Amino acid sequence: MENVDTLILGGTVLCLDETMTRIEDGALAIAGDAIAAVGTEREFRQRFTSRNIVDGKHSLILPGLVNSHTHAAMTCFRGIADDMALMDWLGNYIFPAEARNVDPELVYWGSLLACAEMIKSGTTTFCDMYIFEEETARAAREAGMRCLLGEVLFDFPSPNVKTPQEGLAYTRKLLYRWSGDPLVRIAVEPHALYTCSRSLLLEAGNLATEYQVPLALHLLENSSEKKQLQEKLGQDALSCLRELGLLNERLIAFHCVCLDDEDIETFRDEGCKAVYNPESNMKLASGFAPVSRMLREGICVGLGTDGCASNNNLDLFQEMDTAAKLEKVRHLDPTLMPAETVVRMATCQGARVLGMDGITGCLKAGMKADFILIDLNRPHLTPMYNPYSHLVYTVNGSDVKTVFINGKMVMKDRQLLTFNEEECMQQVRRIAERVRESLKEPV
Amino acid sequence: MENVDTLILGGTVLCLDETMTRIEDGALAIAGDAIAAVGTEREFRQRFTSRNIVDGKHSLILPGLVNSHTHAAMTCFRGIADDMALMDWLGNYIFPAEARNVDPELVYWGSLLACAEMIKSGTTTFCDMYIFEEETARAAREAGMRCLLGEVLFDFPSPNVKTPQEGLAYTRKLLYRWSGDPLVRIAVEPHALYTCSRSLLLEAGNLATEYQVPLALHLLENSSEKKQLQEKLGQDALSCLRELGLLNERLIAFHCVCLDDEDIETFRDEGCKAVYNPESNMKLASGFAPVSRMLREGICVGLGTDGCASNNNLDLFQEMDTAAKLEKVRHLDPTLMPAETVVRMATCQGARVLGMDGITGCLKAGMKADFILIDLNRPHLTPMYNPYSHLVYTVNGSDVKTVFINGKMVMKDRQLLTFNEEECMQQVRRIAERVRESLKEPV
Repeated sequence: MENVDTLILGGTVLCLDETMTRIEDGALAIAGDAIAAVGTEREFRQRFTSRNIVDGKHSLILPGLVNSHTHAAMTCFRGIADDMALMDWLGNYIFPAEARNVDPELVYWGSLLACAEMIKSGTTTFCDMYIFEEETARAAREAGMRCLLGEVLFDFPSPNVKTPQEGLAYTRKLLYRWSGDPLVRIAVEPHALYTCSRSLLLEAGNLATEYQVPLALHLLENSSEKKQLQEKLGQDALSCLRELGLLNERLIAFHCVCLDDEDIETFRDEGCKAVYNPESNMKLASGFAPVSRMLREGICVGLGTDGCASNNNLDLFQEMDTAAKLEKVRHLDPTLMPAETVVRMATCQGARVLGMDGITGCLKAGMKADFILIDLNRPHLTPMYNPYSHLVYTVNGSDVKTVFINGKMVMKDRQLLTFNEEECMQQVRRIAERVRESLKEPV
Repeated sequence: MENVDTLILGGTVLCLDETMTRIEDGALAIAGDAIAAVGTEREFRQRFTSRNIVDGKHSLILPGLVNSHTHAAMTCFRGIADDMALMDWLGNYIFPAEARNVDPELVYWGSLLACAEMIKSGTTTFCDMYIFEEETARAAREAGMRCLLGEVLFDFPSPNVKTPQEGLAYTRKLLYRWSGDPLVRIAVEPHALYTCSRSLLLEAGNLATEYQVPLALHLLENSSEKKQLQEKLGQDALSCLRELGLLNERLIAFHCVCLDDEDIETFRDEGCKAVYNPESNMKLASGFAPVSRMLREGICVGLGTDGCASNNNLDLFQEMDTAAKLEKVRHLDPTLMPAETVVRMATCQGARVLGMDGITGCLKAGMKADFILIDLNRPHLTPMYNPYSHLVYTVNGSDVKTVFINGKMVMKDRQLLTFNEEECMQQVRRIAERVRESLKEPV
């Protein structure tokens, strides 16, 4: 008998590996931060012992979800303004709220609250872009979440940095400080083509190449951005990215609503990664991203919630449901975006997008132990004919019972184990009061 | 001091009345099955006493939601088949599964499970169409849910009735038996124009007129139905309905995806009611219903989940989220379907659709006491700037804490009080085994 740190016994295990292995009465053995073995309960009861045995019966056990695009700290602005034209929303609410309120404290508590929400809805890894990202890194570390994050870079001052050069220097500091961290990884994150000069983008690209880390940015989120870019750049967005040397396997492009067929072929040829954010694209009326076309071309596409101001939650289960349905009605074809494809986007494909496919997003020996248990003993999850259909069309984040990240149990029976959720909510409520007050002053 | 049966003290009360009254530190007084008064906690502490005091602090208190179109018993077929072409889905899965399995037992337990799911996600009233609806009525009564339901009528035999005449007779029996029931109301429910002969529709209309009850049917769910109807009828759907005398204030039309501008004007002029089912319309690739146009014309539109095979849950909070977002992206206009409008569709407008606007769907003295408490003390519901935005874009059904229907507490702190949820799930799992087996035989 081999001793391991934790044994999960029973339940339906969905590995999300290449062959979509599914094990009834399955089992996981965890040693340290990694999965030691995946198998059946029957076999593991003979083979392993452990002081920590988790009952997986009546559960679905699968890799923790990967939220490939969010702005965690924006939980503080959740629902601050909705149902308005984009320029009204940005100019009169989001930008002033940010300019007047974003500081390290807001980012820390807002990010920690986002971690609470994400863990409680089954997300174990997220990709973040915002301001004062050192605070988001600290929050993720405290929560025990895996992440890829970067300070947002643009031409104008932010509450954190006065110049693009300071932004790059801050990013370099993040890269240095978090190097080798088991949970936190750093990316270089210019905001978008319409907010960054060529020279900033070039330097960002050089930094990403120097450290061999992803470069992430918003790309072609709506048609007015596309038009604006053509005017500003005198060329299309992808030609510009190519000139700057940014079209490569480390490019992560959020939204991609207005990629045309040629752009999609370029993405395929260069191995660029895309992130689909259907709920944000719907709520902001950005448009329909060509997601099934991207998938058909073999592009690696992850799934993201975007920030809380444009969703307004971080529940990837609801995002999967929307992702599966939106493309069907758009093309009047119910066979598009089948459930398994969507679950892969939110797990193994998301991990690939973030350059973490050797680490998380599927269950097999040697991978880090990032996984979740879904409690099936609920009326709305009864009966179950097909677990993938269940995950996409029926489950919501509140059905997640237990969460492990990097071998550590971070939620048990819906109780967070890594930090004080009540304190975190109180802090964010206090910060929200100040946000509310700040918006009473004219813009 | 006046004694009442129940007092709810504290919390934000959203009345969903004509003026959208919102009361901070609000209170409700319940006497018997009805709301005695709506006011503030401060005032009610002086004015009322009760042996049953419910703490509403940190809650949103609002009318129970109205699911204006579902097939409750189809919980038994939840996720039986997805992501396939409509005719494949119907012909190879849904129809054979129904023909081989639907009996009173399946309908009773499936409906009771649906009641569990609906109560646990904040729905207090539903409108149902299926087979053996006497069983659905019994289940709703046991669960303590309010409903409007009717036996599905069509030209071919069902597991319950061999002929349309038997279907009409069964409906008449339902009307007689449930007359005067405090919770269960009966409608006449021909399935659709493409499945019912003119004579059946005419007799159905006469029966509805005789009893002055709603007549509910599926209408123009997708463009192929529209085309098929034109061929079958030699006229458009609404002309046919008009000839049959069915265009009146008691008509409830589900889906309405392919109503054109002229149809919408007719609906407006005749006071017909419509039900919007965005998630089903997306999943089955039926198309985009002209919902904001209908609302602009002043048509009364409710919200429905449709059955579990085409959703695959009965969570109206998720349906509200989708309803608000889908129209925005379709028309590239983020101001369409604002949160308040969508909450009204799922409450007071839904009640009007079902002819229950004097009874449920808003909170004021004299209305039946159908209301829910949402627990705001959760990470994903923190902070709250706007309660309507919260309900639509952030809350999911699992955030519902406590539910009252007709003055009776049917769920407290997420525990169902009216029936045994475990037994119900076990029964449905057993039935699902037989459904699964039945589909192994060739169609």
